[in-house]
Amino acid sequence: MAVDPLRELCDLLARLPGVGERTAQRLAYHVVRQSPDYARALAQALLGVVDGVRTCSRCQALTAVEPCAICGDPQRERGVVCVVANPQDIASIEATGEYRGLYHVLHGVLSPLEGIGPEEIRARQLIARLPGEPPVREVIVATPASVEGEATALYLAGLIRPLGIAVTRIAFGIPMGGEIEYADKLTLARALGGRRPI
Amino acid sequence: MAVDPLRELCDLLARLPGVGERTAQRLAYHVVRQSPDYARALAQALLGVVDGVRTCSRCQALTAVEPCAICGDPQRERGVVCVVANPQDIASIEATGEYRGLYHVLHGVLSPLEGIGPEEIRARQLIARLPGEPPVREVIVATPASVEGEATALYLAGLIRPLGIAVTRIAFGIPMGGEIEYADKLTLARALGGRRPI
Repeated sequence: MAVDPLRELCDLLARLPGVGERTAQRLAYHVVRQSPDYARALAQALLGVVDGVRTCSRCQALTAVEPCAICGDPQRERGVVCVVANPQDIASIEATGEYRGLYHVLHGVLSPLEGIGPEEIRARQLIARLPGEPPVREVIVATPASVEGEATALYLAGLIRPLGIAVTRIAFGIPMGGEIEYADKLTLARALGGRRPI
Repeated sequence: MAVDPLRELCDLLARLPGVGERTAQRLAYHVVRQSPDYARALAQALLGVVDGVRTCSRCQALTAVEPCAICGDPQRERGVVCVVANPQDIASIEATGEYRGLYHVLHGVLSPLEGIGPEEIRARQLIARLPGEPPVREVIVATPASVEGEATALYLAGLIRPLGIAVTRIAFGIPMGGEIEYADKLTLARALGGRRPI
């Protein structure tokens, strides 16, 4: 008996993160109700990503061109590198419109429990590009505020500071619009510890 | 400048129901991290659905074969037809293991506000198949408990009852394991109205 194409699509969709069997079914039926052009375009985009996306040899971000659009942009400030854990973090920082430097994607954070050590994150590639033309003068570590993100930041600082390059950490504290009353203890402690003169 | 394949994939995924821009991005990056085989299989499944799925000429369910597996199954009881609003409802009812009859998919419910009248749901096809071989003796209406679902049930009953065929409605009431205390007023009223001798 032939494989049921709908069943097949459901099974594959259910392997996406946050997509259970029910959601997968809902998505599959939605695709069927759309014009065939939509499913064809989505199939094409999936193949395009497989064939067309690699990591930038400089910043390790995902890109279709080499070097990536940001590394290849002559307008970007080349003396500053912002280190992020995941490729998607770049889009969030870019959306602020506040940052004009370069990036470096680690593709993970140190996590001994999960067996992710210094060799599993792309820290070596970061160190290798610091003495560039022009050399990097500041590395901003924007790994998350988790235990692993903090450990990764400290690890990188230990490697980079001896090279005479400034290492900074993004600020953590009360989010904008956040009420002091409802802030959790850790965030509030961090906000107090990170206080600055007005 | 070439189109960015990742951007393209994100934009298409964001058109799925319940998938916002953030989720689309998370899904797209997930696909990139997987082996290329996954993206290829998913692309293939999407094309398979476009080319291979049509509506069964008898019950209007989505199917890759004609007639669909249920209509073509000689073991199913052919004198009973369960009417559902959407194709995916069939899977839920089949999962109970309690129903051995046939189905009919309306592909919608009556909704004057959205311009969905009797001609937009597949009611005509239902009426046409009732005097079959053997003729249908009971139509179970399993449209949802919404205003539209109820109106659709009443509309169908008005068409079918004059033909001398029994029309029944699935039961609505307190769900299994549900606490009376937390049931909403409408459900509780429905449960009282639908009471049966023990």
